[in-house]
Amino acid sequence: MSKYFQQSLDIHRYLRGKWAIESKVPLQSRDDLSVAYTPGVAAVSNHIAEDANSSYALTMKGNSVAIVSDGSAVLGLGNIGPQAALPVMEGKAILFKEFADIDGVPLVINAASVDEIVTTVRTVAPTFGGINLEDIAAPKCFEIEEALQDIGIPVFHDDQHGTAIVLLAALINACKVTNKPIESLKVVINGAGAAGTAIARLLRCVGHDANSCIPVEDVLVCDSQGIISKNRDNLNDEKLKLLGYTNRFNRDGNLLDALKGADVFIGVSKGNLLSGDDIKLMNEGPIILAMANPIPEIMPDEALAAGASVVGTGRSDFPNQVNNVLAFPGIFRGALDARATRISEGMKIAAAHALANAVNHISASHVLPDPLNRNVAQKVAEAVKAKAIEEKLQRPL
Amino acid sequence: MSKYFQQSLDIHRYLRGKWAIESKVPLQSRDDLSVAYTPGVAAVSNHIAEDANSSYALTMKGNSVAIVSDGSAVLGLGNIGPQAALPVMEGKAILFKEFADIDGVPLVINAASVDEIVTTVRTVAPTFGGINLEDIAAPKCFEIEEALQDIGIPVFHDDQHGTAIVLLAALINACKVTNKPIESLKVVINGAGAAGTAIARLLRCVGHDANSCIPVEDVLVCDSQGIISKNRDNLNDEKLKLLGYTNRFNRDGNLLDALKGADVFIGVSKGNLLSGDDIKLMNEGPIILAMANPIPEIMPDEALAAGASVVGTGRSDFPNQVNNVLAFPGIFRGALDARATRISEGMKIAAAHALANAVNHISASHVLPDPLNRNVAQKVAEAVKAKAIEEKLQRPL
Repeated sequence: MSKYFQQSLDIHRYLRGKWAIESKVPLQSRDDLSVAYTPGVAAVSNHIAEDANSSYALTMKGNSVAIVSDGSAVLGLGNIGPQAALPVMEGKAILFKEFADIDGVPLVINAASVDEIVTTVRTVAPTFGGINLEDIAAPKCFEIEEALQDIGIPVFHDDQHGTAIVLLAALINACKVTNKPIESLKVVINGAGAAGTAIARLLRCVGHDANSCIPVEDVLVCDSQGIISKNRDNLNDEKLKLLGYTNRFNRDGNLLDALKGADVFIGVSKGNLLSGDDIKLMNEGPIILAMANPIPEIMPDEALAAGASVVGTGRSDFPNQVNNVLAFPGIFRGALDARATRISEGMKIAAAHALANAVNHISASHVLPDPLNRNVAQKVAEAVKAKAIEEKLQRPL
Repeated sequence: MSKYFQQSLDIHRYLRGKWAIESKVPLQSRDDLSVAYTPGVAAVSNHIAEDANSSYALTMKGNSVAIVSDGSAVLGLGNIGPQAALPVMEGKAILFKEFADIDGVPLVINAASVDEIVTTVRTVAPTFGGINLEDIAAPKCFEIEEALQDIGIPVFHDDQHGTAIVLLAALINACKVTNKPIESLKVVINGAGAAGTAIARLLRCVGHDANSCIPVEDVLVCDSQGIISKNRDNLNDEKLKLLGYTNRFNRDGNLLDALKGADVFIGVSKGNLLSGDDIKLMNEGPIILAMANPIPEIMPDEALAAGASVVGTGRSDFPNQVNNVLAFPGIFRGALDARATRISEGMKIAAAHALANAVNHISASHVLPDPLNRNVAQKVAEAVKAKAIEEKLQRPL
């Protein structure tokens, strides 16, 4: 992949970043200035002063999402700080624009604690129609997101839910390929960070469509110490919460113990973790979603050779790429179009089903849409918007 | 002007605001995504993690300015709050783009106290190359700006300095028209808010060019109670500071007392305040810069009929429009090009002289460049950049 490294450095240096702003109005004549700025703009300000909700219709607020990061968990690079996170946030912002015509605004911040990050987001919220939290380390990302659910605009940590939603879509379609009912699957999630926790939460309510809430009954989550169970004495609050809806048969052991008899492996951990023999511990024709980047937990060829029925990874050079860009643009588009006050679990499930339904000819090597497919975001957006309205989460107009 | 009100409301509603973002890179193919986003972007993040300064060359930081407002003093509308301030900040952002190719980012904030605003700006600073404070009420605007001078990027309150710099440029050229040496002028400033205070500060160091520091010796500042003098017992801290460099002959009285024998009236107060008879109290051929908007302190015709030699206002429908757009784009362009750590008094004075020198055929009705002239910002930028380098205020590259 190193060819992309030098190319990326070169293009960033040549263009001085990837992100720019533009005016939607002409600014050539005195009249243009009088309409766009003073004195004309005073009428717009007065209108909003009397009716704050009208800012959605009259300003950038209705179409803009801040992409907020403290740089504490950037890609696989770790805590490299806000400055070094900025090129990633710029990338996210232009993907928002390209796939959903949303004006993404990178906002990398000097703020370390949960309180500082929460306060900053609350403070800047009037400018934006939504907040995409990005590359913030677990477990503080959970607390931050939860503390911000009441601010009146959607706050969504993409490293958790974006990945989880695409994984769920892949799983829904993999079940169609393998003729397994999703609720009876035995699922092992390896990795209890942002994405692993979020997928475990979504599996509480998968259903057969976006409107039925049926849990996957047998879900195990492993961290580096093995299966998360109530017999462990080293669990933080987030992991204790996981026990509320995973490991209902109270099993103990390491990852290999977990894999015995499982139907699905979801890896959000690290590369080269599993061998073909490990896959053979699982039930026949298991579904393997190995998301570690750039090296998956097991390479697709090896997993298929060991009997896997469906294999997905995070990589664009193998089939079934689990790529967040399939989810976040459409989810925020739908939330903005509904003027939703938050993004509920129901809206996330609806997004996963819409994503699964966006695949025309489902097969073992085609359980997800192509990340470059420009029609996907709109389909996701429509499902998310409809769910927001159904759940009465839209802001009064 | 009401025709602009309806037109402005209409265009804001039709376009949903004036501000949008765009990608500078293509996002069509898998290769495009791999260069702009993962995996390629990791090389850019790693580069910045090792050398934070390279973020100026590799990201939006080097070309972006946040336009921060709490909405406490918006146009002439007062404390209408952050939401209602947003259309004004969008206007400012697109003017930055149009006149100086700077990516302005509106940031309206829920923050009332000095401390809250200071903390917010410090927190978001890693994203930006500069901060334009806008429409923040006096006197807290002074304290906020001062507290932020050490953050390593320029922080500039345009309501203070933008107006003051353009006023100084007008005054420099008005002195050429009237053959009066600027340092011997008797100046009356009516209004001790953001702009009035800033112009009084700039008059401490006007000189005959950007490199000589000569004060205007006789400056009076009036507020609604009359001349600010040490005999007053109702002065706040900012007004007490003004006494350090104004009213050196310790005069008392009201505005009309101040005008007696004055050469210059600078109004940053309210409309319809002066009559022709009041102008006649001044020295022969006075210079009148009546900035109240939309109605000036005295209408140009009336001032000229009473003997004024040069009259400027804030309005585009009279000669000599004192418009901030002549200053802020070029000032930030120069500061960004120099990677300046702050905007010094010397850089402001240099901007005023560059602006004055940008007028080709100076006359009583032409002491300032046309606000629509696209060449002005570059001239201001060059002077500001040169001054920053001379004063060793540029960030190490």
